[in-house]
Amino acid sequence: MKLYEQTALQISERIEKGYFLVGDKLPSIRELSQSHSVSISTAQEAYRLLEDQGWAESRPKSGYYVLDRQNTPLNLPNITRPSQRPLEVTHWQEVLNLLCANYQPDSIQLSRAIPDLDAPSIKPLTKLLADINRQLPTRDLLSYETLRGSDKLRLQIARLMVDSGCQLHPDDLVITNGCQEALSSSLLALCKPGDIIAVDSPNFYGSLQIIKALGLKALEIPTHPETGISLEALELALEQWPIKALQITPTCNNPLGYTMPTEHKRKLLALTKPYDLAIIEDDIYGDLAYQSPRPPSIKSMDEEGRVLYCSSFSKTLAPGLRVGWVAPGRYLNQVMHMKYVVTASTSTQAQLGIAEFIAQGGYERHIRKMRQQYQNNRDYLIRLITEHFPDGTRMSYPLGGFVLWVELPGDIDTVEMNKRAELFNTSIAPGTLFSASGKYRNCMRLNFAQRGDERSDKAVEQLGLLAKAMIKEKQTVQ
Amino acid sequence: MKLYEQTALQISERIEKGYFLVGDKLPSIRELSQSHSVSISTAQEAYRLLEDQGWAESRPKSGYYVLDRQNTPLNLPNITRPSQRPLEVTHWQEVLNLLCANYQPDSIQLSRAIPDLDAPSIKPLTKLLADINRQLPTRDLLSYETLRGSDKLRLQIARLMVDSGCQLHPDDLVITNGCQEALSSSLLALCKPGDIIAVDSPNFYGSLQIIKALGLKALEIPTHPETGISLEALELALEQWPIKALQITPTCNNPLGYTMPTEHKRKLLALTKPYDLAIIEDDIYGDLAYQSPRPPSIKSMDEEGRVLYCSSFSKTLAPGLRVGWVAPGRYLNQVMHMKYVVTASTSTQAQLGIAEFIAQGGYERHIRKMRQQYQNNRDYLIRLITEHFPDGTRMSYPLGGFVLWVELPGDIDTVEMNKRAELFNTSIAPGTLFSASGKYRNCMRLNFAQRGDERSDKAVEQLGLLAKAMIKEKQTVQ
Repeated sequence: MKLYEQTALQISERIEKGYFLVGDKLPSIRELSQSHSVSISTAQEAYRLLEDQGWAESRPKSGYYVLDRQNTPLNLPNITRPSQRPLEVTHWQEVLNLLCANYQPDSIQLSRAIPDLDAPSIKPLTKLLADINRQLPTRDLLSYETLRGSDKLRLQIARLMVDSGCQLHPDDLVITNGCQEALSSSLLALCKPGDIIAVDSPNFYGSLQIIKALGLKALEIPTHPETGISLEALELALEQWPIKALQITPTCNNPLGYTMPTEHKRKLLALTKPYDLAIIEDDIYGDLAYQSPRPPSIKSMDEEGRVLYCSSFSKTLAPGLRVGWVAPGRYLNQVMHMKYVVTASTSTQAQLGIAEFIAQGGYERHIRKMRQQYQNNRDYLIRLITEHFPDGTRMSYPLGGFVLWVELPGDIDTVEMNKRAELFNTSIAPGTLFSASGKYRNCMRLNFAQRGDERSDKAVEQLGLLAKAMIKEKQTVQ
Repeated sequence: MKLYEQTALQISERIEKGYFLVGDKLPSIRELSQSHSVSISTAQEAYRLLEDQGWAESRPKSGYYVLDRQNTPLNLPNITRPSQRPLEVTHWQEVLNLLCANYQPDSIQLSRAIPDLDAPSIKPLTKLLADINRQLPTRDLLSYETLRGSDKLRLQIARLMVDSGCQLHPDDLVITNGCQEALSSSLLALCKPGDIIAVDSPNFYGSLQIIKALGLKALEIPTHPETGISLEALELALEQWPIKALQITPTCNNPLGYTMPTEHKRKLLALTKPYDLAIIEDDIYGDLAYQSPRPPSIKSMDEEGRVLYCSSFSKTLAPGLRVGWVAPGRYLNQVMHMKYVVTASTSTQAQLGIAEFIAQGGYERHIRKMRQQYQNNRDYLIRLITEHFPDGTRMSYPLGGFVLWVELPGDIDTVEMNKRAELFNTSIAPGTLFSASGKYRNCMRLNFAQRGDERSDKAVEQLGLLAKAMIKEKQTVQ
């Protein structure tokens, strides 16, 4: 643990023990530096971390104050209890409905995990793309990129990945058409039909659909909404089943929002070592962790090349660019073959534009702003839901990204709820999409990327009213 | 047959019968109009067709002259004789070498099938892409396209496809990341490991590698360099093997350049009907046919939805855009699922740029110029090879596209030849890439898209000298 982390921990423990109460002014940076014998910059770092963790807020020209963190009751969902057998993935039709929904231009889309694309800090990227199209010779712009992807972009990504603890060479990376192709190339490289893939549960519907399409079976592992996949349950599953690979999103999980504690990540690697288990780590939201520096990836701890690290710019920048990457470790050759087979190469222009955006510092600037916005939006949405949703509603407490998992009381069917929400032009992602076998029917995922306004507040309020009405209906019928 | 086609046919028959000799001046447009009782514009159309077919050339301010078509001796390769059993596809490493070759900036790349990207008529496309990036709201530009792909682009493609005889609704189409994803989604949708896929032979290495990667087997069908896949051999194969699908490139074939006669296309559909055989038709070069109007696709004759039509803008416009499409017929739902699974969606910006380019007439203009350029380049390259290559060299006579298939005499190894050609900075595509089992070792494919210059002429001359030297070596050893 670094010094600033220790310092922050000491403060947060005092808050927990009641030495500082909500609204209390905390020691100034200078005071903290003196009382803890740390440098000014360490004290600053400690406060930044306390802010990220939701313990403190800074008030301009005044100092740091204890935040009303405890007053936002964390009604977290319980650890999940999925089926204990490998299953074929059902439901494609519902995913298709989600993807092909014909949204009204003025609808409130809380369904898909699309980042805020109106943020001013993304605008320089489109300007760069325009410049590239004006200035580069058509020959450079329009030809096939190499199979691995643009040298320039891979260099920039290797640099970015140092933040997650990875020391990779650009040639360890393969650029893909979004994270989806990183995941599909990895699963194609590792598996043949009938193989069993262990997954955290709930799990991103995109990866579940790969499992379905390739004729694989999903073994859903119980998952805790704060610490992630249950290591005990995974260990038992490994003893019991011939698991071919593990696919998880351990940092800023989609849909649950947790980040596996670093120690758990280490343990996960250790306990899967005897099985030489391949781990497909989806880190697409990792750079959107609210804490700084961002948590390390499992890949950063992998000494055996067993981790196939998958990511993209779809959540940090923009999904329409379709630029992702995979660091496949010892499976590099197989994954490169699959990437070629599936799409041959990735759009040249988007790669060049993103590489330049990162090189000019635009990526860092944008991410810093988005993290703050998403964290604020999370707190706001949690308050709204606490206010408007039925008693007994539980929800996740995301530590990064921009999706919230909401578990409704009783047995409210969120597929039905989503249909009825069309009436007020609002869409949600029903929980069933995130399970191989249609579990989580009383859950939903909500996107909170956009800056809220009256209309989106109203939509959340209406969802709450709808949930209450559906509970009442059930009670009347019974 | 249209009136101008009849008129052109009458002229070409007279040339064949010797009424007009090479170099003779043909009747003027006015004379032709009067003698055949057709309009001026019909006479003009007829001459344009005669030019496309290589019968006549126009000389500025003078008129039309009989071209030296007969003097280019067509030493076509014989019908191919691939293995008669379904085979696992070998050789990924050689394809990888081709894809990852680190070309010098000034090298002569005759290897990959990249169109001419320096043509002035492609420039407006990059301008449109720049404008889109400047003018559209980031939200429209950067978000996921719908799963099917841009409405605008699908409408334009449906219109273009009328030229190949297809009457499709935009919703019959799914936009893909290049033709490669159209092919891979189709094969993923149709097959499971172990299935047998019949292919024309030689066959594009990209589709062979899909067959390899998905654990399928390729049954290579003998193929004639003028008329395409042998219908008799295919019929026998269908009786003998449980063939799951047929994958062919019947129009402007890669690598052989032939176009299957329309009547053969019809027969192919009829003879596969009792087997309800799925046909994956790769039409990526179809719009580059030298004749106008372009030949009909098999898809245009398909009344049962059995044809999965795959294409892209990679050969007609630019491969780096990664925009293709598939019209999967009755397999639409399965292919859409696979497309989602593999890459989720296709880059928004490129789709919008291409749609606008087509709508403004830029596509038609560009294609018209490229057809002419590629046809001229074909004739020029054939003359060069005839002049410089060893006696006994055979070669294809492409009717569209920009690749030539060259069969060397004796047993010259073109893999070895490609290595040695590095010395003079030149690369070719060895024939073995185009076979499941490493056949065609004495063949190579050459790209003739670029306007030739002294350096490229020199490279072809050096290839010829190299081939002669390699023959001599063999003779000395023996």
